[in-house]
Amino acid sequence: MRLARVAGTVVSTFNSPVFDGQRLLICDYLSPDGEASGGYVIAVDVVSAAPGETVLILDEGTSARQIMGIPGGPIRAMVVGIIDEIAYT
Amino acid sequence: MRLARVAGTVVSTFNSPVFDGQRLLICDYLSPDGEASGGYVIAVDVVSAAPGETVLILDEGTSARQIMGIPGGPIRAMVVGIIDEIAYT
Amino acid sequence: MRLARVAGTVVSTFNSPVFDGQRLLICDYLSPDGEASGGYVIAVDVVSAAPGETVLILDEGTSARQIMGIPGGPIRAMVVGIIDEIAYT
Amino acid sequence: MRLARVAGTVVSTFNSPVFDGQRLLICDYLSPDGEASGGYVIAVDVVSAAPGETVLILDEGTSARQIMGIPGGPIRAMVVGIIDEIAYT
Amino acid sequence: MRLARVAGTVVSTFNSPVFDGQRLLICDYLSPDGEASGGYVIAVDVVSAAPGETVLILDEGTSARQIMGIPGGPIRAMVVGIIDEIAYT
Repeated sequence: MRLARVAGTVVSTFNSPVFDGQRLLICDYLSPDGEASGGYVIAVDVVSAAPGETVLILDEGTSARQIMGIPGGPIRAMVVGIIDEIAYT
Repeated sequence: MRLARVAGTVVSTFNSPVFDGQRLLICDYLSPDGEASGGYVIAVDVVSAAPGETVLILDEGTSARQIMGIPGGPIRAMVVGIIDEIAYT
Repeated sequence: MRLARVAGTVVSTFNSPVFDGQRLLICDYLSPDGEASGGYVIAVDVVSAAPGETVLILDEGTSARQIMGIPGGPIRAMVVGIIDEIAYT
Repeated sequence: MRLARVAGTVVSTFNSPVFDGQRLLICDYLSPDGEASGGYVIAVDVVSAAPGETVLILDEGTSARQIMGIPGGPIRAMVVGIIDEIAYT
Repeated sequence: MRLARVAGTVVSTFNSPVFDGQRLLICDYLSPDGEASGGYVIAVDVVSAAPGETVLILDEGTSARQIMGIPGGPIRAMVVGIIDEIAYT
């Protein structure tokens, strides 16, 4: 998993019903110190993350399908958590 | 998923019938602000995207096979949506 | 697998019970000579690695699920070993 | 999928019978304009591509196994097509 | 698959029995001309490769599990062959 910051929402026309009602977030990947690291991902949101929040991205299809409860669904990346704290020790 | 812009179509000779009748698009990956980010992908089109349109690329085999309805098919990347709007908030 | 050094721990709010009680480590990827190579990963810890330790990261969902014993779990990267020695010959 | 140009053939000693009789091609990845983009892949050839030809690389294990007809085979990348034309519109 | 050169062996403490008795090699990825290309991988060795040898790395979990004969094993990258010759034509 990697850190990212929610930048906005994506509205798209699909031809697959699996995306109906899903919220797609465009998220900028972050380095561990919270700076944008240059990449981004468009991910399905399951934690109701708000723009500007730091989130945890899980980029693996099997995992995403499991969390969504749709075994064969066309999904790969998800926002799975909202970061509360990173403790550097 | 990531953003891309349709650049053209690819005509290829295959030895597998699974590609018969499929439309293959060559798509330039975009950064969130719509600029070409340097990479590209050749993807199966299922939304009838036109050249120049901004699309959503899903690059995972299991997802692609599910949308195409061919469980064991040799596919990985697909154009799954046409972008209507990206709202930065 | 790749080498990494444990940098800290991540505390996050999830909506999936599979992460309950899991320890998430933020780990900096290392080059073979032990220098930070610029990337990082957030991985589930199963070897009780301490901050500063050099560890072995396995970044594949099916493997992670097998080690955790949760066949359909939403996991991808794990800390699977603590490095004792690298012998260059 | 991505574009590549066949650079040569690889002869290797394996300990797995699945590679017996397979033709392995070393292929340089190309940008859409046909220039080498800096990476390469060693792929199983199923279209009898010749050195110098521009080909289509599919880099996903499940797809490769399906085309080869060996469900559990240790394969990931394949040369799946020979490019006839790329139409930029 | 990609080319790599065996640089050394890795000794690690694991908490999973699947790694017992496995030989882990740290291998530097090579460009097609045999120069180190900047990345590396830690891979399970099944061909008894010696340090300095040029090998073929297969980096896909399902393939690795098939060669090892452990369907659910936590493995991703393997040294699957020792390069005898690369013919550029």
